Amino acid sequence: MAVPQLYSKDQEDPRGLGEYIRLLYLDNKIEFEDLRYNIGGEEWPEVKKKMIFGQMPALKYDGNEIAQTGAIMRHLARIHDLNGSNEEEATFLDMFFEGVRDSRMKYLRFVYFNEETRENHVQKTLPEHLANFEKLFKIHSGDYIIGKKTNYTDYSLFEELDVYHTLDAHILDKFPALKAFWERMWKRPNLKSYLEKRAADKI
Amino acid sequence: MAVPQLYSKDQEDPRGLGEYIRLLYLDNKIEFEDLRYNIGGEEWPEVKKKMIFGQMPALKYDGNEIAQTGAIMRHLARIHDLNGSNEEEATFLDMFFEGVRDSRMKYLRFVYFNEETRENHVQKTLPEHLANFEKLFKIHSGDYIIGKKTNYTDYSLFEELDVYHTLDAHILDKFPALKAFWERMWKRPNLKSYLEKRAADKI
Repeated sequence: MAVPQLYSKDQEDPRGLGEYIRLLYLDNKIEFEDLRYNIGGEEWPEVKKKMIFGQMPALKYDGNEIAQTGAIMRHLARIHDLNGSNEEEATFLDMFFEGVRDSRMKYLRFVYFNEETRENHVQKTLPEHLANFEKLFKIHSGDYIIGKKTNYTDYSLFEELDVYHTLDAHILDKFPALKAFWERMWKRPNLKSYLEKRAADKI
Repeated sequence: MAVPQLYSKDQEDPRGLGEYIRLLYLDNKIEFEDLRYNIGGEEWPEVKKKMIFGQMPALKYDGNEIAQTGAIMRHLARIHDLNGSNEEEATFLDMFFEGVRDSRMKYLRFVYFNEETRENHVQKTLPEHLANFEKLFKIHSGDYIIGKKTNYTDYSLFEELDVYHTLDAHILDKFPALKAFWERMWKRPNLKSYLEKRAADKI
């Protein structure tokens, strides 16, 4: 199989959903080509025309294209053994992923559409989501969402926690399981240098 | 296994996401308990407290709960053989489902938040989504999204087309593959009487 090509938007604030896929690839040392486009740039209108939904992220390999972040993540989970070990775990990971996605959508609507104040988002909306994630995280107690091994939802959960932590450095303090998970992900050997560079670039 | 209980919101305009799950169950003659709650009603606040994300739809069985429409649909797809016949088809169905979901979200934002005019939604936004769905539908040419057999995404696609058709009776005219699919779904023996009753109740 040819090396898959990840099409995603350029790093910016907020980072795009392609970051979930990138983290999965990096942490599992899976080779991929990282193609980034600036949505406002000259190239994007031409590239967009060739995309199934005219959207990024998208994954192309061997003439195939997969669009939609969730579909890409679940596909990679299945083929790279990151989907839990049975139907119950696969469903749990899926439900958790979708919950994280809901939280991301609220965040984007706060950032782009000013649907709520920063204060409301940080002090009310996010803590409600985080309280649910803390509860879910503890169900299969372990270092990651399920036990001692990462699965695909760990990357989306980590990415969101990292975004929220940038927004408010104390936001995880009331959620010890999530905070420990977030710190643990930062130390993973295949992610550490990338995460450090990413944070430095931002500053 | 105990009969699964589908918790979803009462029929109203617009119908809830629970309808995807209901159609899947009805068409495949799978027994389920159809529990509906009025979001503004007296019971819901108590029921909400017992829900993982405080949201419907949710599915409960044997002490388990699955929340999130996508996670429920994909779980049912896997256990009831409605998920295509290989990895490529499962990914295609997932991608298509997510695209349909994006379209639903735009519709809800038009209905609840007046983010665009009715004219813009019917004449521009929806046709753009439908053009993509028409293109995707033709990839695996057949009576349904993949060949001659229904899969889980057929129920969400049909439900959205039916909602859009109610909004504008001519909206499917430019999309012959989708229109034929929509008509075909209406005639399925296990759906027909339910769909007729549903349409009559609305009028």
